Amino acid sequence: MKKKVLIIGGVAGGATTAARLRRLDETAEIIILERGEYISYANCGLPYHIGDVIKERGSLLLQTPEAMKARFNIDVRVNNEALSIEKERKVVSVLDKKTGKEYEESYDTLLIATGSSPLKPSIPGIDGPGIYSLWTIPDTDKIKSFISTKKPKKAAIIGGGFIGLEMAENLHAAGCEVTVIEMQNQVMAPIDFEMAQLLHENMRMNQVQLVLNDGVKSFEGVDGTTIIQLQSGKAIEAELVILSIGIKPNSVLAKEAGLALNERGGVVVNEYLKTSEPSIYAVGDVIEVEDYISKNKTMVPLAGPANKQARICANNIAREFGVLGGDLEKYKGTQGTSIAKVFDLTVASTGVNEKTLKKWGKEFNKDYFVALINQKSHAGYYPGATPLTLKMLFSPEGKIFGAQIIGQDGVDKRIDTIAAAIRLGGTIYDLAELELAYAPPYSSAKDPVNMLGFVAENILNGLVSIVGWNGLEELKKSEDKNYTILDVSEDIERMAFFIPDSYHIPLGQLRNRLGELDKEKLIIVYCAIGVRAYNAARMMMNSGFKKVKIFPGGSSFYKSLYH
Amino acid sequence: MKKKVLIIGGVAGGATTAARLRRLDETAEIIILERGEYISYANCGLPYHIGDVIKERGSLLLQTPEAMKARFNIDVRVNNEALSIEKERKVVSVLDKKTGKEYEESYDTLLIATGSSPLKPSIPGIDGPGIYSLWTIPDTDKIKSFISTKKPKKAAIIGGGFIGLEMAENLHAAGCEVTVIEMQNQVMAPIDFEMAQLLHENMRMNQVQLVLNDGVKSFEGVDGTTIIQLQSGKAIEAELVILSIGIKPNSVLAKEAGLALNERGGVVVNEYLKTSEPSIYAVGDVIEVEDYISKNKTMVPLAGPANKQARICANNIAREFGVLGGDLEKYKGTQGTSIAKVFDLTVASTGVNEKTLKKWGKEFNKDYFVALINQKSHAGYYPGATPLTLKMLFSPEGKIFGAQIIGQDGVDKRIDTIAAAIRLGGTIYDLAELELAYAPPYSSAKDPVNMLGFVAENILNGLVSIVGWNGLEELKKSEDKNYTILDVSEDIERMAFFIPDSYHIPLGQLRNRLGELDKEKLIIVYCAIGVRAYNAARMMMNSGFKKVKIFPGGSSFYKSLYH
Ligand SMILES: Cc1cc2nc3c(=O)[nH]c(=O)nc-3n(C[C@H](O)[C@H](O)[C@H](O)COP(=O)(O)OP(=O)(O)OC[C@H]3O[C@@H](n4cnc5c(N)ncnc54)[C@H](O)[C@@H]3O)c2cc1C
Ligand SMILES: Cc1cc2nc3c(=O)[nH]c(=O)nc-3n(C[C@H](O)[C@H](O)[C@H](O)COP(=O)(O)OP(=O)(O)OC[C@H]3O[C@@H](n4cnc5c(N)ncnc54)[C@H](O)[C@@H]3O)c2cc1C
Ligand SMILES: CC(C)(COP(=O)(O)OP(=O)(O)OC[C@H]1O[C@@H](n2cnc3c(N)ncnc32)[C@H](O)[C@@H]1OP(=O)(O)O)[C@@H](O)C(=O)NCCC(=O)NCCS
Ligand SMILES: CC(C)(COP(=O)(O)OP(=O)(O)OC[C@H]1O[C@@H](n2cnc3c(N)ncnc32)[C@H](O)[C@@H]1OP(=O)(O)O)[C@@H](O)C(=O)NCCC(=O)NCCS
Repeated sequence: MKKKVLIIGGVAGGATTAARLRRLDETAEIIILERGEYISYANCGLPYHIGDVIKERGSLLLQTPEAMKARFNIDVRVNNEALSIEKERKVVSVLDKKTGKEYEESYDTLLIATGSSPLKPSIPGIDGPGIYSLWTIPDTDKIKSFISTKKPKKAAIIGGGFIGLEMAENLHAAGCEVTVIEMQNQVMAPIDFEMAQLLHENMRMNQVQLVLNDGVKSFEGVDGTTIIQLQSGKAIEAELVILSIGIKPNSVLAKEAGLALNERGGVVVNEYLKTSEPSIYAVGDVIEVEDYISKNKTMVPLAGPANKQARICANNIAREFGVLGGDLEKYKGTQGTSIAKVFDLTVASTGVNEKTLKKWGKEFNKDYFVALINQKSHAGYYPGATPLTLKMLFSPEGKIFGAQIIGQDGVDKRIDTIAAAIRLGGTIYDLAELELAYAPPYSSAKDPVNMLGFVAENILNGLVSIVGWNGLEELKKSEDKNYTILDVSEDIERMAFFIPDSYHIPLGQLRNRLGELDKEKLIIVYCAIGVRAYNAARMMMNSGFKKVKIFPGGSSFYKSLYH
Repeated sequence: MKKKVLIIGGVAGGATTAARLRRLDETAEIIILERGEYISYANCGLPYHIGDVIKERGSLLLQTPEAMKARFNIDVRVNNEALSIEKERKVVSVLDKKTGKEYEESYDTLLIATGSSPLKPSIPGIDGPGIYSLWTIPDTDKIKSFISTKKPKKAAIIGGGFIGLEMAENLHAAGCEVTVIEMQNQVMAPIDFEMAQLLHENMRMNQVQLVLNDGVKSFEGVDGTTIIQLQSGKAIEAELVILSIGIKPNSVLAKEAGLALNERGGVVVNEYLKTSEPSIYAVGDVIEVEDYISKNKTMVPLAGPANKQARICANNIAREFGVLGGDLEKYKGTQGTSIAKVFDLTVASTGVNEKTLKKWGKEFNKDYFVALINQKSHAGYYPGATPLTLKMLFSPEGKIFGAQIIGQDGVDKRIDTIAAAIRLGGTIYDLAELELAYAPPYSSAKDPVNMLGFVAENILNGLVSIVGWNGLEELKKSEDKNYTILDVSEDIERMAFFIPDSYHIPLGQLRNRLGELDKEKLIIVYCAIGVRAYNAARMMMNSGFKKVKIFPGGSSFYKSLYH
């Protein structure tokens, strides 16, 4: 018997499920209800259209209702909003926003792919003119037309998440002076503070004013300008304000229908992506997923997972309809792999960060270890090599918890390699063995990912010990003054920069000058990058020095952290 | 007791083992014998120095004997050639090439890291002037000085392997008209013919003359020009000739010392990288390794494996000396991951190719399957996206045999992801699930590697059937005329190009025009890329068509293959 599938939401999750389902089942009736005017559009491209990097608005519209009809025989109803679900009767009531008419649509299987919406906290003045969120094509149109008519000189972005930072870059490209206001002490929550410092440095270099540790108290519109009063008492003026404070799942429909939700409003689904109601599936930003690493429940609003869930969901619907063989398919969880371009840098992460490990009560250098290294994007002797900073977190057994990478080039590739390794249960020992493609324009004979593996291995078997990024500052603050900071870089490098209060012996002289150092004292070694410091540390440890540690990332990283 | 380690060969394998061993053992005496003038140099950068892409010769020299002494306390003896090994007495006799003196050096542990050398078959005239191999710094100096003094207009490269192609690009950059002469029907042996056609096309676009299926009969020097007589009767003139025909392991020492060699002259080592003699290790180009996929014995002369073997070798020596804990470490084999820049393209591969599977007697669409797809390097709507062609070979159980990728951008990252998946035992089902980093400048929500997984999955569960790249031509040649080639692209695309004798129904009209086609007949569908063809195939298969197949890579690939 011909089945009827109703899909609420026509973008990443909804449209992808519909397309795949049609490929599996030619006869099912498939209806997409989309409250907006557009389906299948590239949400992720919107910031770049504002910066005019993506010039053609039309290129963001990947499918039209007409093409979906012609190609997939899918009945796409834009401007049709689902108002409620009656799960017992298996009907959805729908508002046709063009005609204002309400009607009911029945289903055999329902999919909720309603996504999420930007948060708009109840801050005084938040609905004022010149204050926008960026989430949809109409949002984009509004912001673009504001820019072209009002030509704002100053823009402020509230929230330093990835959309906020993409907007910072694109509004800068559109000619605005940009201020980013962030409540935390760092932008880009998925990475750790010391890594975020590299972003902060680069954003400031690009004339972005960064206001950290501060929240918005109120917005006041004065003569076409918004005055943003901050908790700290500071005030920022901007003609254009972008809110990117956070998002909430569009789960009111699900809630009112009595489906199970988590405390953050996410729709609870089982491993087959079914809600608490057997005839209703849900995918995308609206659902709760399992964290692939910790197996905790979480929410990860990203397009990759939404698309993958959609395909599994379509497969499972087709299986229930008997048109596809095999057992129902499981969605195995999300590891949060993400990436963003932020001015001259690319920042990416996968898995769990150190903040999260700490939240779980895990202790540094006991429950988890950190490899933080600098490497070149490709062979240093081939032109165009740029530095990469890589941070990896791992367990005493070598299990990879997560990784973060920042650099100009080759970031995406290393995060993908590590993400694949995590997915397949690989350990840090496997990273050391990975056979990655090497020619000078692309990598080094030891790829940065191999290096992470080597360093992690050395940490676990006690060949090297690395202080935390703030280890030096903590020592300086502590009572214990019984330590030496040892700089093993060359004279010429030291002339350019050195860490205060450090003692200097270039690596090439160290073996003959070990006598100048106290074997019983804690010695923290550094060089520019970390490799010479490591060689120095090995030399000292093998010569009877008791407590040698290296400062991760070297003086280049220290500079980014503190200057 | 202080141990003495002698290392023959001071570049990738030798120098890396020495450095790691010193980090593990401060007291061992470590001597490197290097017959050339340089150690630790970047072989892989040599072609780019000739093309002046790498301007500074000095940047190719990664370490000097003096620095190795100062940093690592290693006794590096350049211009010292090992002449023979007496394994019973544990001594090596050495020629000091500067003084002409011979001496003996004893060892507790010996490492053979002598690498390989270019083949020079006994072709008449091969020692003539203007004919060079590129393998070492002195080779590079000679070729560079030849170019700057003789200013050759025409250069010929014998052999289309990766060094040959890098040289083609760099001699082109140096202003030469370049001819590449290759005995096989394709350049770049690790990839399959149809993929190599993409390289052929791009090389020809870059004014390289390609002579395939032809070998050199003789070289004749006439007035500063070499006339290259080919087997076919053709003759090519060039002032500069580069030989890159193949290489042989430098294993004479090992052979004369009575160590076990394989039939290609490779030194046989066990999984701990020990030769047949317990006190002698060997690493790098000179050894036989296990193919990671097939577990057959093979030889893979690449820098990545050499460096990794070196580190394992140093660990094992240190373990035997009792300075490092744990069991001896195994080298688990090489999967041949490699990459090269060839003019505008990057070509990369990992694992086994189709030619090899055929050689093993495996049958297409029975013992192995092929997914060959076109994808964009990143989201199509973000500027700068370029096409990628990806080919993957896999077993009926979903095991990945290997993959090949060609494109302008993002090739390295996808091959590394697949290489990591192969290494960790991932299947095509895992590729479909990999959670890779997505933002528009870097990828698509479904990364090309995910797409390979999807397509492979569809092939294995019968949702799609794909003809071989030469399937159309074979059909045309066969008796059976009972088939239709169906073009589902748009009118405007068809006006630009179509496969001869194809029937045209744009995808958007197909559902209503299925009646024009015969359900019993073999139908081979194509579009520009493959995605619409796939959607058409599903529609037809779900509507009772019995034999629908798609042509991989679409008309864009067809053009590269045949035009
Ligand atoms: C500016 C921006 C940039 C982004 N960049 C990236 C990126 O670089 N990488 C990345 O991985 N992710 C990115 N994302 C996130 C990504 O777009 C989402 O994770 C993904 O689109 C989620 O898919 P979904 O199907 O759950 O929701 P959506 O794609 O948002 O689709 C949900 C649809 O449901 C409709 N809807 C909601 N309620 C109803 C109703 N009651 N009736 C009818 N229709 C309804 C909505 O109108 C909406 O069109 C970005 C998002 C934005 C907004
Ligand atoms: C032009 C070129 C480009 C390359 N590009 C790449 C690339 O892009 N990617 C890649 O992965 N690989 C590349 N390779 C291959 C890579 O360089 C080798 O695989 C790697 O160097 C092998 O390391 P090895 O230690 O075994 O040998 P080598 O690095 O060659 O070192 C062997 C050394 O042993 C010395 N030696 C030999 N016999 C004796 C003796 N009897 N006494 C004393 N010394 C001796 C030799 O002089 C030589 O210096 C390239 C090679 C060349 C030549
Ligand atoms: C446009 C849209 C409806 C397309 O859905 P789709 O048809 O499933 O996806 P694609 O066009 O990417 O094609 C993928 C399919 O083609 C197949 N395919 C790709 N290349 C192929 C080839 N060369 N040969 C055979 N099949 C191929 C894949 O296997 C896959 O099919 P499957 O899912 O049945 O296995 C949907 O992706 C969408 O709405 N996207 C925009 C919204 C969005 O994702 N936004 C967030 C990111 S900006
Ligand atoms: C130059 C050469 C002697 C250096 O050897 P090396 O010291 O082992 O290698 P690197 O300088 O790359 O350093 C790697 C070491 O630093 C460690 N390391 C890297 N970054 C680190 C950091 N930030 N903190 C701590 N340790 C770090 C790695 O763990 C590794 O040590 P390990 O092997 O003991 O685990 C050797 O690589 C060589 O001769 N190379 C040139 C020849 C060649 O490879 N040619 C072919 C390719 S062109």
